[in-house]
Amino acid sequence: MTHPTVDIQAAADALASLRERRPLVQNITNYVVMSVSANALLAIGASPAMVHAREEVEDFVAISSSLLINIGTLSPLWVDAMKLAAAKASALGKPWVLDPVGCGATAYRTGVAAQLAAQRPSIIRGNASEIMSLAGAAGAGGKGVDSTVGSSDAVSAASALARRSGAVVVVTGATDYATDGKTVVAIGGGHELMTLSTGMGCALSAVTAAFAAVAPPLVAASAALAVYGAAGKLAASKLRGPGHLAAELCDALYVLDAEALGRHATISTRALA
Amino acid sequence: MTHPTVDIQAAADALASLRERRPLVQNITNYVVMSVSANALLAIGASPAMVHAREEVEDFVAISSSLLINIGTLSPLWVDAMKLAAAKASALGKPWVLDPVGCGATAYRTGVAAQLAAQRPSIIRGNASEIMSLAGAAGAGGKGVDSTVGSSDAVSAASALARRSGAVVVVTGATDYATDGKTVVAIGGGHELMTLSTGMGCALSAVTAAFAAVAPPLVAASAALAVYGAAGKLAASKLRGPGHLAAELCDALYVLDAEALGRHATISTRALA
Amino acid sequence: MTHPTVDIQAAADALASLRERRPLVQNITNYVVMSVSANALLAIGASPAMVHAREEVEDFVAISSSLLINIGTLSPLWVDAMKLAAAKASALGKPWVLDPVGCGATAYRTGVAAQLAAQRPSIIRGNASEIMSLAGAAGAGGKGVDSTVGSSDAVSAASALARRSGAVVVVTGATDYATDGKTVVAIGGGHELMTLSTGMGCALSAVTAAFAAVAPPLVAASAALAVYGAAGKLAASKLRGPGHLAAELCDALYVLDAEALGRHATISTRALA
Repeated sequence: MTHPTVDIQAAADALASLRERRPLVQNITNYVVMSVSANALLAIGASPAMVHAREEVEDFVAISSSLLINIGTLSPLWVDAMKLAAAKASALGKPWVLDPVGCGATAYRTGVAAQLAAQRPSIIRGNASEIMSLAGAAGAGGKGVDSTVGSSDAVSAASALARRSGAVVVVTGATDYATDGKTVVAIGGGHELMTLSTGMGCALSAVTAAFAAVAPPLVAASAALAVYGAAGKLAASKLRGPGHLAAELCDALYVLDAEALGRHATISTRALA
Repeated sequence: MTHPTVDIQAAADALASLRERRPLVQNITNYVVMSVSANALLAIGASPAMVHAREEVEDFVAISSSLLINIGTLSPLWVDAMKLAAAKASALGKPWVLDPVGCGATAYRTGVAAQLAAQRPSIIRGNASEIMSLAGAAGAGGKGVDSTVGSSDAVSAASALARRSGAVVVVTGATDYATDGKTVVAIGGGHELMTLSTGMGCALSAVTAAFAAVAPPLVAASAALAVYGAAGKLAASKLRGPGHLAAELCDALYVLDAEALGRHATISTRALA
Repeated sequence: MTHPTVDIQAAADALASLRERRPLVQNITNYVVMSVSANALLAIGASPAMVHAREEVEDFVAISSSLLINIGTLSPLWVDAMKLAAAKASALGKPWVLDPVGCGATAYRTGVAAQLAAQRPSIIRGNASEIMSLAGAAGAGGKGVDSTVGSSDAVSAASALARRSGAVVVVTGATDYATDGKTVVAIGGGHELMTLSTGMGCALSAVTAAFAAVAPPLVAASAALAVYGAAGKLAASKLRGPGHLAAELCDALYVLDAEALGRHATISTRALA
């Protein structure tokens, strides 16, 4: 099997495909970010639905193009639904993305994240502390749902997690990384202000699920990071504070074209030893 | 019984009455749109409250002016509360609005929508796929929570549903329709960008509940559509994308006067055969 | 024990301390305001986390700097978690803030608020109707979650509640008041438009919890009111309606400095008889 090419052109192609196919993305996500996630998905050209009841999650997976599971405000009934939905997506061969929010902060949260990671997600996205915790690496740190470790420090943990879980693993931070355990893709873009607006990482995971409906996991993850990073950089550069960032980001996602993508994001790859 | 006159003047009068009386609107609605719904209600001059616990929904109906039930992120405990609240509103003769989000997407969702529609709502509002599904019409389609059918195609299904349920039925789309099964009101206004900002339809249902507190159902539904459509059109015309639409819509609802309403919305009626 | 000095300088010092220490603030709050609360906390310099499952609330309190409990959209499982978290915070001596949203509107809500108020919160913040209801005062009124009484009418009820509960009690309105039962601090600032954007009071309670992590309760409450009031006044003065207020408020919180604080807020104290 050859690796798919991962570069700006591949990201632009994936974006065009997403906008043409308008995938239906099912979200089982946290209360805080549902609105911004839905808005980011609409802006990029996907059709979002937030559906979490155990009574219907499996039926909904069957009609969806892809699935996002984000454990931010987890509780037992929701965890049951997450497991049902993940199992159904795996059974049907539908791509799904896991966002292990706050993994490492409490035993309950870490346990649920590990159980879901074992259900063959296509992509796992987190900050450095979350990924290191999920990988079982030492020194994961973490301050609630924020990372206390830089993203580059988590690349080897991400690679190990990718090899063990079979997922492409994404670590976001000042530079973003995506890896399938054999190749590491480094994506530049974004803006520091994005850490001061709630749900920016969670909405990125939702956008990643939209890309996963139209491209293989490593391309999808890298394209999502590049598109989101370029849009975030464009959005934040106009602002004096974080208040309007989510709205500006949606506008930037809506108008972003291949030319602006190439100007405001970078993608580079290297093989792992 | 004579039909109430439904025109722009009636809509302007209903708006003035709403602002004067500031109705307390109880919302049992989905997580995604709670914030934008509350903001739209505040901007138009109502007093919103989001209350869903089985332990208090009936007590709250007793002090509310009207009630919205939106099944977007339904689950069993919430459905129990929806049924209790609907029954209480019907028993007290208080107007209530049903938004059957995603009706047709899963069996669970379609069943709950049908059960609620049987509890004598004053108004039912949905997109074409949802209304056709709830009416049991063929070819309802639907893509998650988005419609795959135009609103004009759903008018006969809406009329049938209105006659069967006793509710005024609203179908929103490029043109909006409201019908009591005898008269069809067509309302022009709105903007395509409104389909790319989450909760626009759900917040309209909440605003409809506010109007239902101050006017009879067909007038209330038509007034809500005209006011919301005019405000949406004014808001969207200033924007390059959907990011700031919800905020601009609230500003437009807040400042809208009778003159701007008459300039940016149209209302026409015809009798059904 | 001497009273801490409460003035604009103390508020500016508390703000500087908050930004330096970046407290981790745990929120058990209502669905409507989670996003705006997280954004206000991020903008002011805190690290927010929304965590409510009974399975992890106590573990999370142990790593948090302070805790907010807001009963806006309460239901039994959440109330269980609120009580566990409050007990843990009290046991560990961690500051926690109670926002008794809608206290007085239903028997269930009033009962829960009273139970939580008995668990030794550091600060209780509400509007006049809520505080009067919680204090058991006559004439509390209230319209759903909005007050029907002016804040100055609630000062004596607030003082009685402060003495009984051991908490600093805050009543917000045209003028804001904070009292420990011995001193009353009156804080000027804010803007009427803030009553037309959902979650402004709830986000203030969250910001108050952030200040409670870095200052004693009466200073923390007064500093939060002054900072938030100054930022709100600056934000609202630029706007024609409430639509962009939450975003502008976050920007104002982000850029506010001691000079602007002193120019746009006032603090005065008087001893109670």
